Amino acid sequence: MEKNKYDTLNASPLNFAETEMWMGIIPASPDGKLPRRMAYVRQLRAIEFRDGGVEFNVYAPDAQSVEVSGTRNTRWGQEKHALHKTKDGWWQALIPGIPAGVQFLYYFFDGREHLYEHAPICYAHNRLCNFVDVPDPEFDFYDFKDVPHGAVRCEYYRSSFTGTLRSCWVYTPPCYDADTEKHYPVLYLLHGGGENETGWFWQGKINLILDNLIAEGKCKEMIAVANFGHAYAPDSRQEGVLPGHIERLLLDDCIPFIDRRFRTVSDKAGRAIAGLSMGSYQTQWTAFQNPEWFDYIGIFSGTVGNAFPEVSTAKFTAAENAEKFNSQHKLLFYSKGMLEGGEKLPGEIQELKDNGIEAEYFLCDGVHEWQTWRKSAHAFVQRLFID
Amino acid sequence: MEKNKYDTLNASPLNFAETEMWMGIIPASPDGKLPRRMAYVRQLRAIEFRDGGVEFNVYAPDAQSVEVSGTRNTRWGQEKHALHKTKDGWWQALIPGIPAGVQFLYYFFDGREHLYEHAPICYAHNRLCNFVDVPDPEFDFYDFKDVPHGAVRCEYYRSSFTGTLRSCWVYTPPCYDADTEKHYPVLYLLHGGGENETGWFWQGKINLILDNLIAEGKCKEMIAVANFGHAYAPDSRQEGVLPGHIERLLLDDCIPFIDRRFRTVSDKAGRAIAGLSMGSYQTQWTAFQNPEWFDYIGIFSGTVGNAFPEVSTAKFTAAENAEKFNSQHKLLFYSKGMLEGGEKLPGEIQELKDNGIEAEYFLCDGVHEWQTWRKSAHAFVQRLFID
Repeated sequence: MEKNKYDTLNASPLNFAETEMWMGIIPASPDGKLPRRMAYVRQLRAIEFRDGGVEFNVYAPDAQSVEVSGTRNTRWGQEKHALHKTKDGWWQALIPGIPAGVQFLYYFFDGREHLYEHAPICYAHNRLCNFVDVPDPEFDFYDFKDVPHGAVRCEYYRSSFTGTLRSCWVYTPPCYDADTEKHYPVLYLLHGGGENETGWFWQGKINLILDNLIAEGKCKEMIAVANFGHAYAPDSRQEGVLPGHIERLLLDDCIPFIDRRFRTVSDKAGRAIAGLSMGSYQTQWTAFQNPEWFDYIGIFSGTVGNAFPEVSTAKFTAAENAEKFNSQHKLLFYSKGMLEGGEKLPGEIQELKDNGIEAEYFLCDGVHEWQTWRKSAHAFVQRLFID
Repeated sequence: MEKNKYDTLNASPLNFAETEMWMGIIPASPDGKLPRRMAYVRQLRAIEFRDGGVEFNVYAPDAQSVEVSGTRNTRWGQEKHALHKTKDGWWQALIPGIPAGVQFLYYFFDGREHLYEHAPICYAHNRLCNFVDVPDPEFDFYDFKDVPHGAVRCEYYRSSFTGTLRSCWVYTPPCYDADTEKHYPVLYLLHGGGENETGWFWQGKINLILDNLIAEGKCKEMIAVANFGHAYAPDSRQEGVLPGHIERLLLDDCIPFIDRRFRTVSDKAGRAIAGLSMGSYQTQWTAFQNPEWFDYIGIFSGTVGNAFPEVSTAKFTAAENAEKFNSQHKLLFYSKGMLEGGEKLPGEIQELKDNGIEAEYFLCDGVHEWQTWRKSAHAFVQRLFID
């Protein structure tokens, strides 16, 4: 079957097929046998990918103006683009030049921000947020392709640390269901500030990245687990620069749950951890403090871990600890986008190396955005669980 | 661990734990060592269950008025309830007497409808929609409990009928992963008008209903599959009273996919189909026309199948076909809520019975709402796959 331009978008649980079918009125049949009735009628898709750009269609019959913009610190930026009124309450704009990848969107009706109920939605900026995932002409490694697909599961567990029910999303590789004797290593993923346990799947497409690499024989079959990164003890102040203690949630509750529920390789050699931005600090703090837990460490779009005094990891990578540190991990992987200060990080990595720490650095084109993290994950997972 | 009032709500992939942590400013530490910084600060939950009712908290600093209402044809109704301004852009109302179960919500800012970005969201009314799931003091059969839990999976398959990638949600029972030799019967579920493949999980909680019944030994272990009910051939007009041809999608594409991908009992005795409202017509049309496919048929909040001339099933249940019809199915199960005309349906069922058709009728308290469909499913699944 032919590949469809919406396949990858549709392979996201928060974008639904054919949502442009709304209730409306259809006329009576010409022979009069079927009366004028309520029926499903096809409307415009909220977002269409055209040759000339992205076409936005908005139904806003009461609005005097409709605009759309990207968000701050992105390639696309925050400039508002006006839609023009077409007919019957519809507004439209064809906007060229929107950069590839996930672009979070704000719609504005009469100048006021409006979460648009007919467009794809995800969790970002500590709230539900519209987005468009613009196809990238250069990369298809995260596209939905006709290869064997793993499963994406929503899982729930009680946390002894937070005292609450927790949700996590779990990817199991294509062979997991069929090869019921095999045990699989696990990659624990942490999202960035303002996102949640869905980010690595809905925005990051980690399941499709793994499906495609596994099909090409370029990475090991593995399980991937994404948690919500906020984890507070019930009696804590529950505020701060960092969102609680993810290391307690992972080590006390989540990893034991995953090891009970799935056929895992439940030792350090079978465990990796990676996070982006906020999650990159959490990754360093968790992995460096608990050296017996993870052999592979991925730090995407962070810095060498001393940005916040509360969670500085400088002591672990000091020169006098280098030999010990190196013996504790098989891979310490840093990545950054070129346009988010990626040229500067090598200086920090050099300091690490001067201390005797073994670290790798992956630099890609990109700002502080999902396209950078997709590429980082794509590079990182190929290095995992290699004997 | 103690049961938490938010457990069931949190066990929904579109409601996220602790989303009330937003970015804000925290002051410098008293000793001056930590500066004033951006940080996570705890805000009010959008929806709190209080003794006196449901508390709504809305952040809308630019609004002059904020209101919330239910939707039409519900117990709660469409009356708008005003929130009052508290401080710093916040609005609040404690609203007593909201009926139990899923109530779809519309928020209004300055009189204009506003999908609220901090409240739980689902797909209903052919769009994304806010909702509250008010705990029911009478029923806990769909609550998240500490029993063995099955898995909820997002699955994708190519449809030869529609020519597109399709998403479906699949429940596998608690033993599915461990007991890798066993094959399981499958229940195919269809949603109502305006909803989609997520409805039976996010609103209906079919996974929790099955988890709880299986734990009590009151129903067989089964797989449950929910599709999006719109299915159009690529060259079709793609409009109409009924949303295309779900029977083609199910029989040609979905069932073969499920039988390939899961350990199913892949015959008629191992297959049930049920739908609500729009899905109840689709269920009758699909099952009656294809008598070799489903032994168990559930029709929730529909009528005996002659509401639409296009899909009238009257001929199948005519008196002259009764003996044949009865031999083709093990269970024909109708249900309705008392307050949606449930008292009237027995007349239609009586006509069926007068024709010699064997049918059962389950009547519960309820309007045309998820509480009725949860109860219907709870009764129906206990009758399935009994040898």
